[in-house]
This record gives sequence, C-alpha cells and structure tokens, in this order.
Amino acid sequence: MTVSQTTQTELVRVAHALADAARPVTLAHFRASGLQTDNKNDAGFDPVTVADRGAEKAMRDVLAELRPDDAVLGEEFGHQSGTTGLTWVLDPIDGTRGYISGTPTWGVLISVADDQGPLFGLIDQPYIGERFAGGFGVSEVDGPTGQSVLRCRAPRPLAQATVLTTFPEVGTAQEGAAFHAVANRARLTRYGMDCYGYALVAAGQVDLVIEAGLNAYDIQAPIAVIQAAGGIVTDWHGGPVHNGGRALAAANADIHAEALAILQDSFSG
Amino acid sequence: MTVSQTTQTELVRVAHALADAARPVTLAHFRASGLQTDNKNDAGFDPVTVADRGAEKAMRDVLAELRPDDAVLGEEFGHQSGTTGLTWVLDPIDGTRGYISGTPTWGVLISVADDQGPLFGLIDQPYIGERFAGGFGVSEVDGPTGQSVLRCRAPRPLAQATVLTTFPEVGTAQEGAAFHAVANRARLTRYGMDCYGYALVAAGQVDLVIEAGLNAYDIQAPIAVIQAAGGIVTDWHGGPVHNGGRALAAANADIHAEALAILQDSFSG
Repeated sequence: MTVSQTTQTELVRVAHALADAARPVTLAHFRASGLQTDNKNDAGFDPVTVADRGAEKAMRDVLAELRPDDAVLGEEFGHQSGTTGLTWVLDPIDGTRGYISGTPTWGVLISVADDQGPLFGLIDQPYIGERFAGGFGVSEVDGPTGQSVLRCRAPRPLAQATVLTTFPEVGTAQEGAAFHAVANRARLTRYGMDCYGYALVAAGQVDLVIEAGLNAYDIQAPIAVIQAAGGIVTDWHGGPVHNGGRALAAANADIHAEALAILQDSFSG
Repeated sequence: MTVSQTTQTELVRVAHALADAARPVTLAHFRASGLQTDNKNDAGFDPVTVADRGAEKAMRDVLAELRPDDAVLGEEFGHQSGTTGLTWVLDPIDGTRGYISGTPTWGVLISVADDQGPLFGLIDQPYIGERFAGGFGVSEVDGPTGQSVLRCRAPRPLAQATVLTTFPEVGTAQEGAAFHAVANRARLTRYGMDCYGYALVAAGQVDLVIEAGLNAYDIQAPIAVIQAAGGIVTDWHGGPVHNGGRALAAANADIHAEALAILQDSFSG
C-alpha cells in the first residue's frame, strides 16, 4: 500500500515511542537475580520472562493510544485485528536465551507492515543503548558512539566473508548441515548473536546471517533494517520470508546469490 | 607476595588508567570500514589489527610513566622484565574475531600478577562502556546502568546450568568433545561470547565457561575478576591456569566439581 509522507513520519515516531516504552521494562529485569522463567516449549529451552510480557504490554498500551486502528501481531499476546491495512509486528525480547544469560545480544524488534511485508523496522538493544532503524528512506543507528548511517558491505567472495548464525543452538540437523555447507566456505563463522547479527549485516560488519525456525515477529524488523541499508533477506529458496521460516540475510546481491546456490544444493526443505 | 594497602590502591588506579588509555584507541577502529587485518596464524584466522597494537602501545606508555619498574607481558609486544616482582599482563583486544565482526563481546584484559598468579584484573568492554573489576577486596562492574557489586551464582545442578564457550570456533576435536560432554548435560549452552563470557560468570549470569588454547594474557584478568566474585578458575585437571591452556571457570565449588569430573572422564590431555 502507499503510505503518505505524513503517515510515514507518524509511523516512525510511533515506532520509536514503542522502543522507548519497552526499554525500561526489559532493563528492569535484565541481569536481575531470580528471574522467573517458564518453559514454553517442552522440546527445547524457550524461556518467557516477566520482562517479555511486560514489554509487549507496554508497547500495546502505546499503540492503543497512538494507533488504535492498526493491527498488532506480538510474540506474547498474539494477533489483534485492525482496519488501516497496517500491522505492528512486535517481539518484546528476541533472544530470550541471551537475555537470561546476561549477554547484550537480545533486542526489542518492532516493525510496521502491510500485506507485502515490513515497511519500517527497529532493532533496539536497551542495555547498550543502541537502536538500528530502517525504512521510509531512513537507515541509521544511534548508539553509545553517536548516530551514523547504516550501509551493508560491498560484495566480496564467500571465501572472504563472515557468516553469523544461532546454530548449533536452533534448527534441525538437516538445516544445520545446509548452514555448515555455506559456513565451511566462509572465512569466519560466529555464533550466538541472536537478532544483533542482523543489525551487524545492516552496519556493514558481516556478510551473511543464516537461520531457521523463525516466526514473523523474529524477522520483519531485521528485513526492514537490512533492506534499507542495501541488503537482501529471503528464505532459503530466494522467496519472501516475512512470514517466518528459514532466513538468508545478505549484505548484497552477489553474496546472497553465492550463499543461496549452496543452500539450494544442500537442502531440500 | 604481600602488597601493601597503599600499593594496592596505586595498582587499582593504574589498571583503570590503562583501560582508559586503551578505550579511545580500540573504539577509533571498531566498526570502521576497511579495517586492516594481518593473519598471524596461517592455520586459522587470528587477525591483528592496528587497534590491537595501538591499544597495547598506549597502555605500555602509561606503565612506562606510572610503573616503570614492573614487568609487562602483552599479546602484541611480548615480555619486558621488571624489578618489583609484579607483572602487568595485557591483552589489548581479546576476541579479535568478535572485534572485526562488530560484536560487543571483545574486551581489553588487564591484570597485575605476582608469580603465583593475578592479584587484580579488569575486563573492559569499551563500546558498551562497561568495566568489570576484581581483586584487592574489589568486585564490581561499572556500566550503562550504573555500578554494582559482582557476585557469582549460588550452586545449582549442571542440569539447571548455563555454559558458555567459544567452541566450536577454537580447540581441537578432542577438546571439543570434552566440552560437549559437559554442555550436553547443561540446561543451556551459548557460543561466541569471547572474554565477555567470563565477565558474565562474575556477574552471576552464567555458571560455567569452558575454553581451550588460551594464553596467559587471555585468562589472568578473568581469573582475578571471577575469583573476587566468589568463583573458581582452574585448568581441566583442577590445577592453576594462569599461564594459559584449557580453562574451566565456574561460579562456585559445586558446579566446578561437577564439570571437572566430566572433563576428567572425557579428556586425557
């Protein structure tokens, strides 16, 4: 859909207001001792914290006031329909494993989408005090060393590239094998960065992030931020991934094509 | 050796002066595009950056002025002897792989040791603006949310514990197998945290860090910080590790004993 300049400005302002509302809630519980965690998924370890629910509630309260007619899809409290054609997609704490381990790699993911996918997104890291933004002509990070433009890396061969992932922690064995088929040809592979890895693609620091098992709220903000910085995010067949699944986030078309070819050779999913 | 209260105060002050001197040098190059990297080790990927050398030089300049008679051991410029029985052990950028990937998990490691091991240490993360200190009765972190006391976790069974490591990136296959023998019995395993993982043991966020292939300058500051917070750091046989090798850093004696028993069963190195 076409979004007017005035509405774009409004949506960007609201997105920042959401991130501002989530920050104190997530920080109040980060590194607190005795953090309560439930186990959502008996098969794995997917803790849900008081902070996760509190931060999404805080963001939904802001939306109820500022954008009551938009739809909302959040990790913790599900889908709420709207009438504008716009949907706010919220992950109050992406990377809960990182959060409960005290690592500064989790983030608050916020995006606003139409039915074609995300239009604008934020990746916010409250502990560092760093916010990556992309969409509506914006591509910037504001953090401890000030504000700067986000720009993905120029093409380099996979043999010179850096690949990030959350594997071996997530994904099936078959998905992991496909990931390693790419990673084994890269110069450097790093693990455990949670959503912060996508921010590093947009910041021009790494070339690829490859992940699986994603939900829409895990990937929409990263898509917006990376696309605005010149990168490409697709599924493992080169198609859209804003509804979740297996993601290939790339700094540019060349490295995307090189990684995609290997994934398609190594994986039939 | 016995260090007087006056000298302790002086050494703590100098350690902070070293960290202060290193910060602007490491930050000037962090996330800069076109970072120059040499490859120190043809067998792997161990980049040395301009920042690495510049930060160690800056710290050595401070020592030449404030503590000219102490010995210095640094990653980049080797050993310089002294006459006081004290040695400053410096790693200007621990986690260079993280540094060149833009992740905020690298750190400046500073410790002052006698021949029995480290007496006081700092783990400084310049981008976050976070400094973990331990020794001479001090155990604290100063960071984005203020200052707080560091205290390792109380005992919990390994089945409820979080384990961090840099594996699978470093170590031999045999070392990796021993690590996994422990990690497979833990609740949660996280990767890629570089020296920041040791800080998280001291901060009471995780239970174990298990690593191999360490040099003295990689482990002395973590030992000081973790011991001051109530934890234990040994090699995989329970002996001292301040000269480097394979490290088992634990939040308390119970989890240390449980992990050590598994390592000793699974590894004959």
